[in-house]
Amino acid sequence: MEKVMKKVIEFRDERGWGQYHNEKDLAISISLEANELLENFQWRDSEEAARESRQNIKEEMADVFIYLLQLADKLDIDLEEEALRKLEKNALKYPAPSPSDQ
Amino acid sequence: MEKVMKKVIEFRDERGWGQYHNEKDLAISISLEANELLENFQWRDSEEAARESRQNIKEEMADVFIYLLQLADKLDIDLEEEALRKLEKNALKYPAPSPSDQ
Amino acid sequence: MEKVMKKVIEFRDERGWGQYHNEKDLAISISLEANELLENFQWRDSEEAARESRQNIKEEMADVFIYLLQLADKLDIDLEEEALRKLEKNALKYPAPSPSDQ
Amino acid sequence: MEKVMKKVIEFRDERGWGQYHNEKDLAISISLEANELLENFQWRDSEEAARESRQNIKEEMADVFIYLLQLADKLDIDLEEEALRKLEKNALKYPAPSPSDQ
Repeated sequence: MEKVMKKVIEFRDERGWGQYHNEKDLAISISLEANELLENFQWRDSEEAARESRQNIKEEMADVFIYLLQLADKLDIDLEEEALRKLEKNALKYPAPSPSDQ
Repeated sequence: MEKVMKKVIEFRDERGWGQYHNEKDLAISISLEANELLENFQWRDSEEAARESRQNIKEEMADVFIYLLQLADKLDIDLEEEALRKLEKNALKYPAPSPSDQ
Repeated sequence: MEKVMKKVIEFRDERGWGQYHNEKDLAISISLEANELLENFQWRDSEEAARESRQNIKEEMADVFIYLLQLADKLDIDLEEEALRKLEKNALKYPAPSPSDQ
Repeated sequence: MEKVMKKVIEFRDERGWGQYHNEKDLAISISLEANELLENFQWRDSEEAARESRQNIKEEMADVFIYLLQLADKLDIDLEEEALRKLEKNALKYPAPSPSDQ
């Protein structure tokens, strides 16, 4: 993920946009992009959306991810590490069934 | 990012949750988690939120990321590649100023 | 709608909350409540959600409405009038089919 | 509010759209419109947004309200009554300070 993070920061800094990037507005941006992603599924089921709007879905997912990386950079958070930690926490909350339960 | 993706899929499959994971509900989940992240900034500025709620902010960011990876897996999308492509597209839309413009 | 608006404002002012009610945070609140409403439909179809979570759906709808009224008050906007105007605008964009089209 | 509700339903029925209006997609629509409203406040403070984008803010608020009325109609919910009930519930949770507390 280092390569993407590096490119995201480079893109931002070449345009001098870092000065506007406060955490609150980045969190707003993540919600806005998540809803632009969701818009592809409005009035449709998953199959139709994936078939008709695959390109737009990919781009909106990229936008959510890019803003998430910018917020992670701003807060000095390692997103991969946090995801692994959250999965461990979730594993305690929702233990995997043992083979004999299945 | 392969390691996180692998863990996310493993977590899902150990619990047999993949069968419920349609794309539309995953897109809804991304919006819900993005708003749980945003909730940390409600009625507060960025500094106060980052100071008082850093742990929760990290966990909600992890949740957005985990659902994004699950949707990427479901749609067979390479999230890093798409982010790089989107940055290139954005670079055409918003050209970086040349040094003499600055 | 005057009665509800009056009660919403009264509730806010008895608690001295008006001073914190800037428009940006009220807009954030509307998005947060809309997502709490949406959460009732996650991983479920409309019928199951309406059957299992009717009470929560009603309360979250009320929350969206209450924040919308607070933002309308803050911006001195007549929400009913704006809705009627928007319907007229939409009617130009999406003309109703004439009886012979149907 | 009866007049607006009547117009909203009339608009929908003249176009035969009621058949597509399931509750889950209406809840998605409310979140989408709430985020289009929120977009007016991205990277800006409340004053700038209210000054520069008042017209768009009014229209997006109208859209949230219109979808909320459509969901209320679909679920046979009286939105004003629910808002009054929610305010009473909130009043128990957050009692108003007595004059001597102030």
